[in-house]
Amino acid sequence: MQDKWIVGVDLGGTTTKLAFINMDGDIIHKWEIKTDNSDEGKNITINIAKSIDQKLEEVEMTKHKLVGIGMGAPGPVNYDTGVILNAVNLGWRDSFPLRDLLETETSLPVYIDNDANCAALGEMWKGAGNGAKDLVCVTLGTGIGGGVIINGEIVKGVNGAGGEIGHITAIPIGGSQCNCGKKGCIETIASATGIVRQANEELLKEGACGELKEILHQSGAITAKDVMDCVSNRDPLAEKVMENVSFYLGFVLAGIANTLNPEKIVLGVVFQEPGKYC
Amino acid sequence: MQDKWIVGVDLGGTTTKLAFINMDGDIIHKWEIKTDNSDEGKNITINIAKSIDQKLEEVEMTKHKLVGIGMGAPGPVNYDTGVILNAVNLGWRDSFPLRDLLETETSLPVYIDNDANCAALGEMWKGAGNGAKDLVCVTLGTGIGGGVIINGEIVKGVNGAGGEIGHITAIPIGGSQCNCGKKGCIETIASATGIVRQANEELLKEGACGELKEILHQSGAITAKDVMDCVSNRDPLAEKVMENVSFYLGFVLAGIANTLNPEKIVLGVVFQEPGKYC
Repeated sequence: MQDKWIVGVDLGGTTTKLAFINMDGDIIHKWEIKTDNSDEGKNITINIAKSIDQKLEEVEMTKHKLVGIGMGAPGPVNYDTGVILNAVNLGWRDSFPLRDLLETETSLPVYIDNDANCAALGEMWKGAGNGAKDLVCVTLGTGIGGGVIINGEIVKGVNGAGGEIGHITAIPIGGSQCNCGKKGCIETIASATGIVRQANEELLKEGACGELKEILHQSGAITAKDVMDCVSNRDPLAEKVMENVSFYLGFVLAGIANTLNPEKIVLGVVFQEPGKYC
Repeated sequence: MQDKWIVGVDLGGTTTKLAFINMDGDIIHKWEIKTDNSDEGKNITINIAKSIDQKLEEVEMTKHKLVGIGMGAPGPVNYDTGVILNAVNLGWRDSFPLRDLLETETSLPVYIDNDANCAALGEMWKGAGNGAKDLVCVTLGTGIGGGVIINGEIVKGVNGAGGEIGHITAIPIGGSQCNCGKKGCIETIASATGIVRQANEELLKEGACGELKEILHQSGAITAKDVMDCVSNRDPLAEKVMENVSFYLGFVLAGIANTLNPEKIVLGVVFQEPGKYC
């Protein structure tokens, strides 16, 4: 058992990242494939199964080397059925039976969870959590994901919606429209989308100038990474946006800290460049 | 074992409530004594031990009937040592070794926890939690206490400060001074003290009138219970205060709900009349 490998799969809307991991959690091989969202997602699990077989062949191993698959899915997961809910937003058919399809295609046992929960477990095991058993992990990307670990276990919540930190209201009166239907969620402020929106609002104001304005002139649009880069260069407009982001993110995280008194809060930022997790 | 009793003790700054409880959690006898805060609290455990002996005699039972004592303490507790921290605020000596003193006085095993955590466990076992294993309990009194239960276990937090819901910031900019040193904590708004402060602010405004103003005229001061009673009678000034209280309390509880997706949030309100827990 000790010399076996686990397959780790991070299923994203655009890219699927895969890895063979040993029982100590060290990455032995890692690679990625494009996520094929066509035909209501029916090729997703077929492609993952094929890719695992190809990689095994490439590294001259057989399937006996593998004990199973652990997968992070981009949405809330029903733990009993292994179904990913709200998958229709990704172009897949709704209530997508991800676990069963992948088990059929690969003949391996599959465990799935929400990707932010997987990030929290990963940070606890091998990352910035560094052994902490009471840990909150927040991932800032296009949206904001969250995973809460208490006594070493993910807080799933009564409906599997534990850790939905992105939809904590940060601005109770007013606030911008969120994809969830509410207004003023922290996701509307501290996600890549929120940062770009606020920067664009500032850039539209009379007298707006500086490095970020230059980038807008040159490329016609700005990204959250542009805003972060401009902060490094002390661009006042970018600094104003990121001060607002930091203020409200701190406000929300402080509330979580008061509720749970966690040992660590781990922030993961994935803006713009896929694969760069800083 | 099944016919034995547990002693439940709710140690308050003014009153200590006691009960004999059977193994099913039913209250068999309950009574209360005054908490003697003199001499740095040295009589507290002596008085509890005496009172238990007296009650046993009164109901014609011996100490063999008792398996142990469970106590809720008005402050954060060190679980390893049974010491209550910050006890100096109550006039007792600091780092009060509550468990050890009470074990010595009674010759019974003693378990202590923060009183809001005990309230949460009690609500899960016999109260409004009704069997829910993921539960948040918030007690609104002079201050605001909180207890968070995940998978049937109290979230203690890395420093024993889990569930400090009263000190979640509700008003991030401005806000009133809290006893904890911060400003804008939900305790400054939704506790009895906070309600009275806001009502007094409204009553000082020019043109303030209505039932609450009458009570102020007659008795020279108002209580949180007066404000609640006036809301029942649709007094507009009292309604304005309680709308603000409800708004911010809802805001804070919604954030907790997003973080944990609990099965139930139980609100306990203890204003003015001791012993009335509604």
